[in-house]
Amino acid sequence: MTEPAYDLIIRGGRVATTTDMFEADIAISGESIAAIGRGLGPAKREIDARGKFVLPGGVDSHCHIEQLSAAGIVNADTFESATTSAAFGGTTSVISFAAQHVGMQLSQVVEDYHGLARKGAVIDYAFHMIVADPTRETLERDLPALIRQGHGSIKIFMTYDRLKIDDEPLLDILVAAREGGAMLCAHAENHGIISWMVKRLLARGYTAPKYHAISHARFSEAEAFNRLIGMAALVDQPIMIFHVSTAEGAKVIRDARGQGLKVFAETCPQYLFMTAEDLDKPGIEGAKWMCSPPPRRAPDQEALWQALSLGDLQTISSDHAPYRFDETGKLRAGPNPNFKQVANGLPGLELRLPLLFDAMVSKGRLGLNKFVELTATAPAKIYNLHPKKGAIAIGADADIALWDPDKRVTISDAMMHDLAGYTPFAGRSVQGWPVTVLSRGRVIVDGGKISARPGSGQFLARSGGEAAKPIGRLVPDMDPEQNFGAKLL
Amino acid sequence: MTEPAYDLIIRGGRVATTTDMFEADIAISGESIAAIGRGLGPAKREIDARGKFVLPGGVDSHCHIEQLSAAGIVNADTFESATTSAAFGGTTSVISFAAQHVGMQLSQVVEDYHGLARKGAVIDYAFHMIVADPTRETLERDLPALIRQGHGSIKIFMTYDRLKIDDEPLLDILVAAREGGAMLCAHAENHGIISWMVKRLLARGYTAPKYHAISHARFSEAEAFNRLIGMAALVDQPIMIFHVSTAEGAKVIRDARGQGLKVFAETCPQYLFMTAEDLDKPGIEGAKWMCSPPPRRAPDQEALWQALSLGDLQTISSDHAPYRFDETGKLRAGPNPNFKQVANGLPGLELRLPLLFDAMVSKGRLGLNKFVELTATAPAKIYNLHPKKGAIAIGADADIALWDPDKRVTISDAMMHDLAGYTPFAGRSVQGWPVTVLSRGRVIVDGGKISARPGSGQFLARSGGEAAKPIGRLVPDMDPEQNFGAKLL
Amino acid sequence: MTEPAYDLIIRGGRVATTTDMFEADIAISGESIAAIGRGLGPAKREIDARGKFVLPGGVDSHCHIEQLSAAGIVNADTFESATTSAAFGGTTSVISFAAQHVGMQLSQVVEDYHGLARKGAVIDYAFHMIVADPTRETLERDLPALIRQGHGSIKIFMTYDRLKIDDEPLLDILVAAREGGAMLCAHAENHGIISWMVKRLLARGYTAPKYHAISHARFSEAEAFNRLIGMAALVDQPIMIFHVSTAEGAKVIRDARGQGLKVFAETCPQYLFMTAEDLDKPGIEGAKWMCSPPPRRAPDQEALWQALSLGDLQTISSDHAPYRFDETGKLRAGPNPNFKQVANGLPGLELRLPLLFDAMVSKGRLGLNKFVELTATAPAKIYNLHPKKGAIAIGADADIALWDPDKRVTISDAMMHDLAGYTPFAGRSVQGWPVTVLSRGRVIVDGGKISARPGSGQFLARSGGEAAKPIGRLVPDMDPEQNFGAKLL
Amino acid sequence: MTEPAYDLIIRGGRVATTTDMFEADIAISGESIAAIGRGLGPAKREIDARGKFVLPGGVDSHCHIEQLSAAGIVNADTFESATTSAAFGGTTSVISFAAQHVGMQLSQVVEDYHGLARKGAVIDYAFHMIVADPTRETLERDLPALIRQGHGSIKIFMTYDRLKIDDEPLLDILVAAREGGAMLCAHAENHGIISWMVKRLLARGYTAPKYHAISHARFSEAEAFNRLIGMAALVDQPIMIFHVSTAEGAKVIRDARGQGLKVFAETCPQYLFMTAEDLDKPGIEGAKWMCSPPPRRAPDQEALWQALSLGDLQTISSDHAPYRFDETGKLRAGPNPNFKQVANGLPGLELRLPLLFDAMVSKGRLGLNKFVELTATAPAKIYNLHPKKGAIAIGADADIALWDPDKRVTISDAMMHDLAGYTPFAGRSVQGWPVTVLSRGRVIVDGGKISARPGSGQFLARSGGEAAKPIGRLVPDMDPEQNFGAKLL
Repeated sequence: MTEPAYDLIIRGGRVATTTDMFEADIAISGESIAAIGRGLGPAKREIDARGKFVLPGGVDSHCHIEQLSAAGIVNADTFESATTSAAFGGTTSVISFAAQHVGMQLSQVVEDYHGLARKGAVIDYAFHMIVADPTRETLERDLPALIRQGHGSIKIFMTYDRLKIDDEPLLDILVAAREGGAMLCAHAENHGIISWMVKRLLARGYTAPKYHAISHARFSEAEAFNRLIGMAALVDQPIMIFHVSTAEGAKVIRDARGQGLKVFAETCPQYLFMTAEDLDKPGIEGAKWMCSPPPRRAPDQEALWQALSLGDLQTISSDHAPYRFDETGKLRAGPNPNFKQVANGLPGLELRLPLLFDAMVSKGRLGLNKFVELTATAPAKIYNLHPKKGAIAIGADADIALWDPDKRVTISDAMMHDLAGYTPFAGRSVQGWPVTVLSRGRVIVDGGKISARPGSGQFLARSGGEAAKPIGRLVPDMDPEQNFGAKLL
Repeated sequence: MTEPAYDLIIRGGRVATTTDMFEADIAISGESIAAIGRGLGPAKREIDARGKFVLPGGVDSHCHIEQLSAAGIVNADTFESATTSAAFGGTTSVISFAAQHVGMQLSQVVEDYHGLARKGAVIDYAFHMIVADPTRETLERDLPALIRQGHGSIKIFMTYDRLKIDDEPLLDILVAAREGGAMLCAHAENHGIISWMVKRLLARGYTAPKYHAISHARFSEAEAFNRLIGMAALVDQPIMIFHVSTAEGAKVIRDARGQGLKVFAETCPQYLFMTAEDLDKPGIEGAKWMCSPPPRRAPDQEALWQALSLGDLQTISSDHAPYRFDETGKLRAGPNPNFKQVANGLPGLELRLPLLFDAMVSKGRLGLNKFVELTATAPAKIYNLHPKKGAIAIGADADIALWDPDKRVTISDAMMHDLAGYTPFAGRSVQGWPVTVLSRGRVIVDGGKISARPGSGQFLARSGGEAAKPIGRLVPDMDPEQNFGAKLL
Repeated sequence: MTEPAYDLIIRGGRVATTTDMFEADIAISGESIAAIGRGLGPAKREIDARGKFVLPGGVDSHCHIEQLSAAGIVNADTFESATTSAAFGGTTSVISFAAQHVGMQLSQVVEDYHGLARKGAVIDYAFHMIVADPTRETLERDLPALIRQGHGSIKIFMTYDRLKIDDEPLLDILVAAREGGAMLCAHAENHGIISWMVKRLLARGYTAPKYHAISHARFSEAEAFNRLIGMAALVDQPIMIFHVSTAEGAKVIRDARGQGLKVFAETCPQYLFMTAEDLDKPGIEGAKWMCSPPPRRAPDQEALWQALSLGDLQTISSDHAPYRFDETGKLRAGPNPNFKQVANGLPGLELRLPLLFDAMVSKGRLGLNKFVELTATAPAKIYNLHPKKGAIAIGADADIALWDPDKRVTISDAMMHDLAGYTPFAGRSVQGWPVTVLSRGRVIVDGGKISARPGSGQFLARSGGEAAKPIGRLVPDMDPEQNFGAKLL
Repeated sequence: MTEPAYDLIIRGGRVATTTDMFEADIAISGESIAAIGRGLGPAKREIDARGKFVLPGGVDSHCHIEQLSAAGIVNADTFESATTSAAFGGTTSVISFAAQHVGMQLSQVVEDYHGLARKGAVIDYAFHMIVADPTRETLERDLPALIRQGHGSIKIFMTYDRLKIDDEPLLDILVAAREGGAMLCAHAENHGIISWMVKRLLARGYTAPKYHAISHARFSEAEAFNRLIGMAALVDQPIMIFHVSTAEGAKVIRDARGQGLKVFAETCPQYLFMTAEDLDKPGIEGAKWMCSPPPRRAPDQEALWQALSLGDLQTISSDHAPYRFDETGKLRAGPNPNFKQVANGLPGLELRLPLLFDAMVSKGRLGLNKFVELTATAPAKIYNLHPKKGAIAIGADADIALWDPDKRVTISDAMMHDLAGYTPFAGRSVQGWPVTVLSRGRVIVDGGKISARPGSGQFLARSGGEAAKPIGRLVPDMDPEQNFGAKLL
């Protein structure tokens, strides 16, 4: 057997997976990992990784890129800026959205976003399809075809005036997901409660950004989770609940999973590292910290960490949704908007991993293996990007981030590579930083510079996969054997 | 001290309250109970009650009388027929509905129902105000005035196309109830789930009455309970959940009460004595057993009995909603309607007590004291009709039913006094029957005859009372002290 | 019908039961209540009750009277002093203990306590039989006979070195109770945990009375409840759990009841009105507040009130266990004992009702009807003393207390009538006081004087009654149909 | 960089970890894994693994080897036979017991077992120290020293007459474990309940083996779990609960973990693949299926699978406890013993993995990654044998099993390599079999033959490690800040 001339060897780093950590070289041939071991070689090129952690590149499974909001604002980023920002943060795959609005044809929407990504992406990408207009055409024609074409997940909103899906059409979408074998992701908050809170707050003159946090009453989250989970159970469709923010919400999920339901869930750094107090700034400044759901309280942060530890939540995404703090973004309604007039969302693609590395690895909460799992492997598995993505394993794409565990960085607006113009985490210091990033074997970030060509990222076609498979256990209401022979699914 | 010349003495019966049972005479002066004891007298008139149970007349706190449905059907009864039927069944007070529909002025609605009742009622009555159109006029002008005038309870529907109140206006109504000190009663089922089930069933050709039971998916009840309870807790407003039908629904209520929330709940005989199987009759016959929510399964019956035993449910009402089984009622859409076209509802005022007496007293489930509590005392207390109603106590209205505990009756359509023309319980045999009934000291039923004059029943003005008082414990979202100083209530 | 010449009329008071409250006279013939009404009479004697509450005399179902402890101390009271003290506090029936110790013959024990009570009691009484030595003779010969003779309840201890019953013999006793139809009452705390805590505290020099509260680790209560309930469920035997002190304990009970198990429970004033802080006094003074389980924290008090409100706990007893604060009692081991050497227990018969009246009626927590229920009617029912005791009803014993709702009293050691020499509630002020007390129609307390002859109290023979009946639902382990035909009960 | 001459390459198999599965070669240098990749080489020797699964050798963390029971029986195996049997089943590490009995010095016990293992073991091993006599010498002298010497786990029994540890000494042992940093493992069943059931069953003539299953009342498991968990929480000591058998037991664990407690748990193949019905054989035959706790019912199996899936249970061990079905073992008390006289235990080291591979991989329940996790990686991590054991990773010991996924085997007594003489799984067919097994790079099983020298297994010294670290959160009873300054830990 002759020796392979590997294309690249990452030499002597501390390699980590969800389970293991060991010192080894990683040899890359072409776009994938060919070997892991000690003393590998030779190769055409080497990277000295001694003293570095060598981790799977992050998978950010929830981010809004170059997306048109229902209010007509395009968020601050292009695919180029967003994915560049992601790459600088150690992330090598994103799943962003192809966002239908009412009246739009879903197949066209998906095609449009493909066009944008094809032009700008520097890392690989996939799409969740947002369904906001579940017409027969959408459900019966476009969705099945698009799922088959590799868009294995759907997202719906239970709140927002122009996006929300009521319970009856939501059941239709759940069934469509089930029939196509796609995952159903949801922004689950009770719309009526929030609207009522907003109305009541504004009527009493509570207009500052901090009241945004109150307007999303805590119960609006747990309530929507409970309702969504029950409906999904009714038709036996797996779901992913996005951005869990409250202890009560996490508990609803734990209970559902305890009953054997296929309920997945994520949280985001803003719910682990921020609280509602962060919105309490003079004037309109607090708007920079506004996102939905809002950050909550310290005990919620603890509950979310515990839920992550227990596996009740499986992933941490960024929910990147960048708006400039000017008249094109957050202040679009004027220099002194009330909180309802401010676009919701935070930039997050770049700092998701450094913030979590600092907390989990440098400070030791949950640890390195769990960091890899929550930020890369688990999202890759749930969204069926694994084994290509999210793994340091033979045959996997060589999407790899080298982390300097000792590097200390004080975060500033200026160092960010997205186009939001600010980060809510400015001023924080973290230990540990991704210094070199590879996508499919190419070094795309190194020495603080990006070297990837816009458009070099590739579309990741995927079916719903294992996670999206029904469990095959019907509740009595849907079960023909128990119900006068009615077959509803 | 001279001897009172009592107007009437009920001699030697077995008197029962929620707590006690003893042999005694009851002496009545004018309209109220003047004395209870042995060897009382003399009196102008006596009734020999030896061998009989002497119980408070029933209070039926949930019944539809002479009510116009959203679909425009007036139910089969007049106030005269309905209250006569109630009296024959041992019931001496009813709370029926003043039912607003969209576009109607609530104050006019209430006046109209007063007119109907004033003309026909043979027993005393009060009204729950159904709010279906929560305009500012309704909430800010009419409701406060009407509550002050003695209509201490509001009802809302969370389902039915033309009645349902969405979450946002529901919060407005909860706050209006809170400000007026009124109880908020609810028909709580998830509208979207039911609509979806109906659509799906009919699309697949499942049109028979029995599919009505499936269409109200079990989760649609527990879900709506959870949502309603959370919203009520948000604004700290006591609620009464009508007609609990499922074990899961009862559990949601138990959990809420265990948290100290002021959640009251009822069930009805149809959920204790019928199951979904009762709708499984040839042709359209099953429509006679259709009500909403539908009867469920045997384990639900057990769960409801247990919930009654534990105090999780506090009352048993009839939800009397009579429709003739002909083209004026159930078959209004034609001789072969699909289940969605059939009016929902059952006659129940007359048999509520005999069915429960048979089960609870003759057969011994929960027993005589609990029978008195669930059917008379507890509803009187919750709706603030006590101490006038629901009690055998000094000074209470002499609303009394004498029950022959040995009388066996086989129920038939022909013996009913309402105008539905049938009873879903025809063919059942019960032991124990109310043979003599008094309203405010007047014998109104005796020897199988009614002797009360239409219109002799009186309106029972009442505030929301103790049960409707907030607990004064706000969740953080509403609490000014915990939320940046926002005062929302 | 001629007018009865009543023996006594209590004129014009506000009479209350568990359900009602009304102004009325109460007429008494011989020892029982003959009539309740307005304008009753004439009678040989009258008591003016205008402005007073007229309530059933209290039933104290858990008190230690003239009882020999396992350590050989007789508590401070005689039957005369204890029942006199009870009478002054508005209590007219007590259930105290016939306390077996290891080596004693139970039948002799019961006879001995009968002798003491017969000589001294001024109010009526019954006995729980403490079983500490479950020999075959005790279980198979004495217990069945004694139950048949009217001792319808057994008590066991799960802790205390010389009293505790281990799990295996406890199952034997549960089965013996079941076969005799008796209630099984329990002091349920985990013995090993408490012993370990004591050992550890003393070894570290934590000897002051306040450490007694720590030594009874909170979990020792919930644990023992869980274990006891499970064993009782195994053999389908109703139980009464004494003196619940923690929120966790109350929750275990609520859960058990929610499963349909026949679990009754009580708490005591010391757990509603005292906390562990009360033991934190200079020197050995805190020993006056020592009882087992110890008082806990303010949130436990709230949890217990809620459990009472929900019916999870059904009665409030005193657990009267008086020891003088001198070398005959609390300081028997010397003037400076460590907390383990101090006899556990508090005097409580006299103040149980005034403390609760003040909190529940004068200050309004739960209210008058619930006061009557928790302190008189419910214990009478659970221990099968009803309908003679615990009720103001026709034919019931005329055990009645007249309460002056306006009388304010500042409690002092000096005003107590038991022989403990102090009360832990000295210095507290209460509103509402029992000014006149009747036992079976005789005025026994009035004008601050007792007029009952020692020995005039009567033994109340009773079977286990309704509360002690098994539910008839066996767990799989005991159910012959599910277990290879094994019949274990 | 020169090419390593690897000692051995396992060529072209399907390598699996807890997370990944890929086709690759594994290169071994000396005793450890040097590289994983495609086209590795050259090596001194190669194994063709094409078509095979290449998995970490199993870690069996609960097995009784050459152990003296409390009754004085040595189980059927020697270290040689037991570890040979394990090796044939794909297991390459065992943790067996150094079993103290009352009166024995623990340090001597450990030394004795070391002697046995050193002589016979063909695979690597560690010991849990069974503490049955927690004298001061044991707790204060021997335990700390032995833990430091690499015995990082303790086992206690809550049942068995001669082994059981009562609650008070159990707390001492928990604290000793905490101070030494050792894991505390427990056989947790309620002793009194089981004893009572046995007594009652035998007294009624229910002596057949099948009644053994009844005698371990289901509640005896959940009860002991609850008690143990609460005591461990009291002193903040991590625990491992052995052989969970009931759904209720699994639920107690889930609840505890949901509260953030460090509670680990395992189950065994007998609880996943057998039920109590398996004991129902003619005559004494059923004794072959007797183990403690006994196998339960089909719904328990489902609950255990779900608990494994959710991470509530983390490992599957064998609880290997072999007794011959003759007068030296199961029938030691004679040819017709009652069930209480039969030694409890089953052989299981050899079939643990084949049974689980068949169910999890061939039949697909939970899948290959979870198979690796539950049987190798997780026990290695929990007991701090990782990263040497339980992993296919660079630098890990080359403990590897090659599985033929297509090989179908019908299990028979004759093919077993332990000395029990029978297997309870005889007659079952499985798909998938370990055909080649390596221990630290040596092929020890291949072609149905063992090639390891007795005594070639090595002792695995380990501290308690990460899993055994307290969480640092004390309950109020132990917390000095909340308890009058008492420092109990």
